[in-house]
Amino acid sequence: MSKKAIVLLSGGVDSATTLYLAKKRGFECHCLIFDYNQRHKKELECARRIAETAKCEYEIMKINFPWNASSLLNKDAQIPKGRFREGMNKDIPSTYVPARNTIFVSLAAGWAEAIGADRVFIGANAVDYSGYPDCRPGYLDTFNRLLKEGTKRGVSGESFKVEAPLIDKSKSEIITMGMRMKVPYELTWSCYEGGEYPCMKCDSCMIRAKGFRRAGADDPILKVGYATA
Amino acid sequence: MSKKAIVLLSGGVDSATTLYLAKKRGFECHCLIFDYNQRHKKELECARRIAETAKCEYEIMKINFPWNASSLLNKDAQIPKGRFREGMNKDIPSTYVPARNTIFVSLAAGWAEAIGADRVFIGANAVDYSGYPDCRPGYLDTFNRLLKEGTKRGVSGESFKVEAPLIDKSKSEIITMGMRMKVPYELTWSCYEGGEYPCMKCDSCMIRAKGFRRAGADDPILKVGYATA
Repeated sequence: MSKKAIVLLSGGVDSATTLYLAKKRGFECHCLIFDYNQRHKKELECARRIAETAKCEYEIMKINFPWNASSLLNKDAQIPKGRFREGMNKDIPSTYVPARNTIFVSLAAGWAEAIGADRVFIGANAVDYSGYPDCRPGYLDTFNRLLKEGTKRGVSGESFKVEAPLIDKSKSEIITMGMRMKVPYELTWSCYEGGEYPCMKCDSCMIRAKGFRRAGADDPILKVGYATA
Repeated sequence: MSKKAIVLLSGGVDSATTLYLAKKRGFECHCLIFDYNQRHKKELECARRIAETAKCEYEIMKINFPWNASSLLNKDAQIPKGRFREGMNKDIPSTYVPARNTIFVSLAAGWAEAIGADRVFIGANAVDYSGYPDCRPGYLDTFNRLLKEGTKRGVSGESFKVEAPLIDKSKSEIITMGMRMKVPYELTWSCYEGGEYPCMKCDSCMIRAKGFRRAGADDPILKVGYATA
């Protein structure tokens, strides 16, 4: 019987690559996709298509946060543009969603425990990232301690943890690795806005563009025009 | 301006007492109630009435877990009866819901951060309890470390934490304290079953009955017949 894993899938480059890495390592992957009233639904559709392409079971879980204190949740707020400067993102941007990864990993850990999965995989990355505190290695180590102390599987000494295999990789390393595994990047979406084409100015677009450029690759969503496909 | 807090409210004795304690300490309390397809809706109605009686804002958040691996979620499963023995509950019962407190506290922490609340209060108790791993002091300490490392408020050094003021109290101490604060115990519900009257045989009923007996008090839900009120 193969080992099971829950993979958090957002529809972006990192989580898609993480899914293919987990599959390559032999895990039977169950994808968890969150519909949390993010600004646009496009990334949900992308996540669904990535899971289907990878031939994995998936769940789209609806969460109605009773708050919208984030420019990713509040559709009237401005997304910061032209902000990203390499190695300079020490402040946390307005796109930060309070406790988001803590919430997502907790729910994934619950599902993992319920189906006897060993691992929760998350595409968190602390190199080419926007400065979110819940994307850093120390944070994930503490989360694993929490799982060891606060879940039935953890207490019983079974192997049960969160892994972020891309945590210390640059975006270009991630993309280079992903292209070798044939990750369908043409189905991924990174832009914080949900327009027909990526805005190319938000942090997420800027980090993605830099990644493809340094990997010496063309971004397939710019080539094929994903939005109209 | 008063300090704000999120209080997790389940409709039971411990969370109701925690709410009144937090109010007594001067917090402006916002109650978070979860509708997670638990076996019965009765505790939701109780939680709502407790929040209203305490004159606090509340949110009922719906969560559809994509699993039902718990006798609290699976309505066809048997709730263990006559199981509770004082100091003997070293095994985790089938009513354990995978990662439940981790999920609930995460969501409460997100709301807290969004509205600038200092505290999340939870009625967790590690004395008269069923043996759930996510109700112990070490677990909550680790959660606070996670909030310090993984949230914007934590990273910025602001006071932001989970507190379980009843963690080391016996059920009779909790009830004695609560009666002094006029906690409306007639509105609380503890039984894992949702019948008209408490079953008096599940862990939760047995712990409650022992608590009232040792506090030398009558349980008002047995006296006034809450269910028919």
